[in-house]
Amino acid sequence: MAEAVIGLIGGTGPEGRGLAVRFALAGVRVIVGSRDRARARETIDRLHHELGALPLEGADNREVLQACDVMLLTVPFAHAAETVAMHKADFRAGSLVIDVTVPVTFEGGKSRLVEPPEGSGTERVRASLPAEVRLAAAFKTIPAALLARPHAPLDCDDFVCGDSLESRTRTMDLLRLIPGLRPIDAGSLAAARIIERLTLLAIQLNRRYKVHDARFRIVGVP
Amino acid sequence: MAEAVIGLIGGTGPEGRGLAVRFALAGVRVIVGSRDRARARETIDRLHHELGALPLEGADNREVLQACDVMLLTVPFAHAAETVAMHKADFRAGSLVIDVTVPVTFEGGKSRLVEPPEGSGTERVRASLPAEVRLAAAFKTIPAALLARPHAPLDCDDFVCGDSLESRTRTMDLLRLIPGLRPIDAGSLAAARIIERLTLLAIQLNRRYKVHDARFRIVGVP
Repeated sequence: MAEAVIGLIGGTGPEGRGLAVRFALAGVRVIVGSRDRARARETIDRLHHELGALPLEGADNREVLQACDVMLLTVPFAHAAETVAMHKADFRAGSLVIDVTVPVTFEGGKSRLVEPPEGSGTERVRASLPAEVRLAAAFKTIPAALLARPHAPLDCDDFVCGDSLESRTRTMDLLRLIPGLRPIDAGSLAAARIIERLTLLAIQLNRRYKVHDARFRIVGVP
Repeated sequence: MAEAVIGLIGGTGPEGRGLAVRFALAGVRVIVGSRDRARARETIDRLHHELGALPLEGADNREVLQACDVMLLTVPFAHAAETVAMHKADFRAGSLVIDVTVPVTFEGGKSRLVEPPEGSGTERVRASLPAEVRLAAAFKTIPAALLARPHAPLDCDDFVCGDSLESRTRTMDLLRLIPGLRPIDAGSLAAARIIERLTLLAIQLNRRYKVHDARFRIVGVP
């Protein structure tokens, strides 16, 4: 596989840390970015302390963009489009961004989908990215609480959509590195409208069934 | 269980026949309705001929409504709201309609979701039903092609939503009669907005993966 390094844009939150560790445990070199380089390095120090030596480094977001061909967008959804717009000039041509953000807000204990005018959170990110940067979405329905327990089996499928077959294929090849996760090709970026609603459904099921890790498996697809 | 009889409103199509047979095989008495009583009876004769003796009867839709406390709405989506509106006066008070229709159209080989102003197909049906008739939705993501092979294992989950906890509970109790099908409580009727998109996703996956039976399983819910 060509991509030996994965960067995280804004990767110091729970979702980012969980994904960084899962990829690092799979032997991939991971650079965790933050607006604040010191914060990224502290996060890495803590992960090394908890989990031992792993191929994890910290950097600021700009360094991540300049060093990586594949990046996970792991900022909170509210800052996703703005963050990529701010860094427009820093992307390497042909690089691939994988959007893992979820446009769900919590108000008074109730979860609600945010519906951007572009149709989905991922399509909103697409509108803020330079044309020569590719975009896919993944990990939207994988519970952060589950990712955060690095040795808990994922045992589920993950829906991948992308702005081209190549974006999806690159993303699905990366996903296959993580044990217990099967990528499902969900098609064009418009599929994010469905996938983001699946996240909302999983959040609602977690609440109704008093669990934390509701997630999806597709039956009948080989 | 109190409901010993299930009626089908417009049940002579593939989805209706599949559900009728699955319930009849589970020992439930099923009355398959049609606008045309003779057509319903022909359908039943054919099913008996293919499958042997089963507790299946044919009737017209009006007779179904007058005889049953629980009915599956198995007309094509385009006629769903209109059909229940036409029969407003025929429902028994407190009866339960289970909407299995799917607001997906096919144009030039592409599947597309129909988005009614009410938010979902099921909410549109709710708006056409008398207030004293209860409504739930189920079977929306179970492939008709799979239902139609009466002994093929379903081996999946089914999302149930409803206008009250009681509507959902009655529906989930019925679903549990069918082997291999686990009901998942998806909450209020607004959840149909998500569930109907899941059907679209399954249709798209069938096409992309060249299969016919893509369906869902929830992991992490006991």
